[in-house]
Amino acid sequence: MNDLLKKPRKVYVSRTIEFNAAHRLFNPLLTENENCKIYGKCANKHGHGHNYLLEITLAGIVEQKTGFLFDLKELKAILEEEIVNRFDHRHLNHDVPELQDCVPTTEVLAVLIWDILEERLTSITNREISLHEVKLYETGKNAVRYLGE
Amino acid sequence: MNDLLKKPRKVYVSRTIEFNAAHRLFNPLLTENENCKIYGKCANKHGHGHNYLLEITLAGIVEQKTGFLFDLKELKAILEEEIVNRFDHRHLNHDVPELQDCVPTTEVLAVLIWDILEERLTSITNREISLHEVKLYETGKNAVRYLGE
Amino acid sequence: MNDLLKKPRKVYVSRTIEFNAAHRLFNPLLTENENCKIYGKCANKHGHGHNYLLEITLAGIVEQKTGFLFDLKELKAILEEEIVNRFDHRHLNHDVPELQDCVPTTEVLAVLIWDILEERLTSITNREISLHEVKLYETGKNAVRYLGE
Amino acid sequence: MNDLLKKPRKVYVSRTIEFNAAHRLFNPLLTENENCKIYGKCANKHGHGHNYLLEITLAGIVEQKTGFLFDLKELKAILEEEIVNRFDHRHLNHDVPELQDCVPTTEVLAVLIWDILEERLTSITNREISLHEVKLYETGKNAVRYLGE
Amino acid sequence: MNDLLKKPRKVYVSRTIEFNAAHRLFNPLLTENENCKIYGKCANKHGHGHNYLLEITLAGIVEQKTGFLFDLKELKAILEEEIVNRFDHRHLNHDVPELQDCVPTTEVLAVLIWDILEERLTSITNREISLHEVKLYETGKNAVRYLGE
Amino acid sequence: MNDLLKKPRKVYVSRTIEFNAAHRLFNPLLTENENCKIYGKCANKHGHGHNYLLEITLAGIVEQKTGFLFDLKELKAILEEEIVNRFDHRHLNHDVPELQDCVPTTEVLAVLIWDILEERLTSITNREISLHEVKLYETGKNAVRYLGE
Repeated sequence: MNDLLKKPRKVYVSRTIEFNAAHRLFNPLLTENENCKIYGKCANKHGHGHNYLLEITLAGIVEQKTGFLFDLKELKAILEEEIVNRFDHRHLNHDVPELQDCVPTTEVLAVLIWDILEERLTSITNREISLHEVKLYETGKNAVRYLGE
Repeated sequence: MNDLLKKPRKVYVSRTIEFNAAHRLFNPLLTENENCKIYGKCANKHGHGHNYLLEITLAGIVEQKTGFLFDLKELKAILEEEIVNRFDHRHLNHDVPELQDCVPTTEVLAVLIWDILEERLTSITNREISLHEVKLYETGKNAVRYLGE
Repeated sequence: MNDLLKKPRKVYVSRTIEFNAAHRLFNPLLTENENCKIYGKCANKHGHGHNYLLEITLAGIVEQKTGFLFDLKELKAILEEEIVNRFDHRHLNHDVPELQDCVPTTEVLAVLIWDILEERLTSITNREISLHEVKLYETGKNAVRYLGE
Repeated sequence: MNDLLKKPRKVYVSRTIEFNAAHRLFNPLLTENENCKIYGKCANKHGHGHNYLLEITLAGIVEQKTGFLFDLKELKAILEEEIVNRFDHRHLNHDVPELQDCVPTTEVLAVLIWDILEERLTSITNREISLHEVKLYETGKNAVRYLGE
Repeated sequence: MNDLLKKPRKVYVSRTIEFNAAHRLFNPLLTENENCKIYGKCANKHGHGHNYLLEITLAGIVEQKTGFLFDLKELKAILEEEIVNRFDHRHLNHDVPELQDCVPTTEVLAVLIWDILEERLTSITNREISLHEVKLYETGKNAVRYLGE
Repeated sequence: MNDLLKKPRKVYVSRTIEFNAAHRLFNPLLTENENCKIYGKCANKHGHGHNYLLEITLAGIVEQKTGFLFDLKELKAILEEEIVNRFDHRHLNHDVPELQDCVPTTEVLAVLIWDILEERLTSITNREISLHEVKLYETGKNAVRYLGE
């Protein structure tokens, strides 16, 4: 089976999920004025929110037996446990311990998601699969990619 | 000019804007348990948020002179003043006086937006233009339409 | 609470789900030639498939206590049970008993989904909520709406 | 066949196409200043352009024999001939005779498309199918609907 | 002409097409139980289907005379002949000879499309244009990229 | 603050904007026939137009103090001044001096936008931020990427 896979083929598989969260961009080490200048209305006291769209990409050689890079049912379960449970319907400044000493910008959130998934995936894969990219859309117009560099 | 408009033509013109806001679904007249049962994780204490997409539709006869139903530059300015200024980058439960005695569900928000725009548009249009519909998407999967009934 | 709802407000609430299915357009009462002429490549023997996008719209008065028209958690469960379980990852011609005597066009599928949901919703709602519209997208370019008429 | 269609079922079938065109909003019966005030940068001398998205909706009873409201292959051919050939890769002010005495706003264009398709469809359908709606998106944010009223 | 192209400029040009197909994920060399465990409901006997979205990217130096990397009319014709004719409105397991010894996962399909287009493009281009990437979306949430490695 | 950023983190931040423009693909150094053969209906005399979607990507290390790669308010102002003012609601062949000796294909336009933004960004950034990619969609189906190579 899967004659096309007799030669090793490196693919990039992406899975997209959504979570809805509130956040406030405010650095307590800076003055009110500095925060206002840097973050504008994103520094409003009670926060605002977004429908975050998260695209996770794994890279590796397609498995000849299954034709899969990675079981998407398993990836879905991991993303549910690590990402949705942690961020969905939360206020990022108040409800996420990992962000306590951070301003929860899209950049910082993308980096945190990478760290969480990198650790989790390393612990479970025995084949050569790697986390390739975390892409996080804050809105349809703004997105941040992090590749672990 | 505009020969096609010699006969009156009733059209529906839609304009879409976006605002990003936080909210919490929680009714203080109910117990913690009741809130949890009704609103689930939408009742989480510090709130969560959305990229709200709002589609406003006006209805009326196209003006023969301009070929417009309504000047979209003017509509854009009204939406900026009445909607974006009021809701964008806000926490709906804390920052919007009109929602103080409400649970800010998508239904309630759509009704409030109708009331605000209906009053504003009535005050400025001397031709026969009416607000036809407010459609508010909370996410790509959930939307509420209100037509003033 | 919900002062905006002291006056009854009729809203339309939409929820969108997706299911992936195969189908073949072929009427066994017609000849091979007639089928080919009517259905073109949609009549190919083993079928083809689509990511169907289904938008269900309910209509009624917003409930003053909750600010909801209908509990979307409950609607989601109904759609999972009645629609996803029945159609998702199925071949509509072989696996759906209700379609045995039908050519599974988008029109027919939209009508069937209406009949299924209309019956189910009638049995559970004691407030005045009605199924307003079933909209089914076969592709991003083709869609059918059915309103029960 | 098509047991679900023993009862007459009225559906609305939509088909979406795209065309790319240039236009300039300018009324020669008005002064340069008036044009500038009404149309802003849309009055720039050489015009600008859009990827127009057009959604045509037909309404009628589903045919029991085919399960179709209307053969989409035929509708596609009509839209190709009447719409794409006429508007695609054209400058609406210079290349479309039907728009010679018009300012080619989205409103006017939607009305013209209705008139063209209404006449064409009337000439070919012997069953009771009617043109229900023309919806024209100028951008993702602006759209006009015309229902023949 | 094309002064901006006096310096060689390497660009990546993408073209997106859609095809609608059915497939079943099932490896006959494995037991029914193993298939069920690996592929879940994707192993259902008669298959299911998708609206596949395919984005082909070519890379190379823009031609100074035309301002094009590659004639998109020609690329469109190639994609029509090699991809649409082969996969559209087909059941991948039954109708595509190249997939006879494969489980038609998105990974395998992306690899096959690369092999087909790579061979075809090599045979026709005398300038330095290369196939850069095949990106295949099975749904809006799942995608596979293959770059020929 | 921003403990996650103690280690340098290289991110890619993208911002998307839209502009609406007309263009004609025609090389005056070639004959009418050659133009017609190369550009087809894109060579029509008065031009046609598009809703261009432009995605700009910057790359660099996230700043520890702000959690930002680059202030998006500032990027927005630059894009407004350099891109929207220059291209929006223009006819690219007539109104953009930088394109006078070019055929305004998507490839050429992407290269020009790179050159404009590269120069502007170099003049203002003292931290190590670089323009990484210009991606320009002419339609939903066609896009060109340029990375400065």
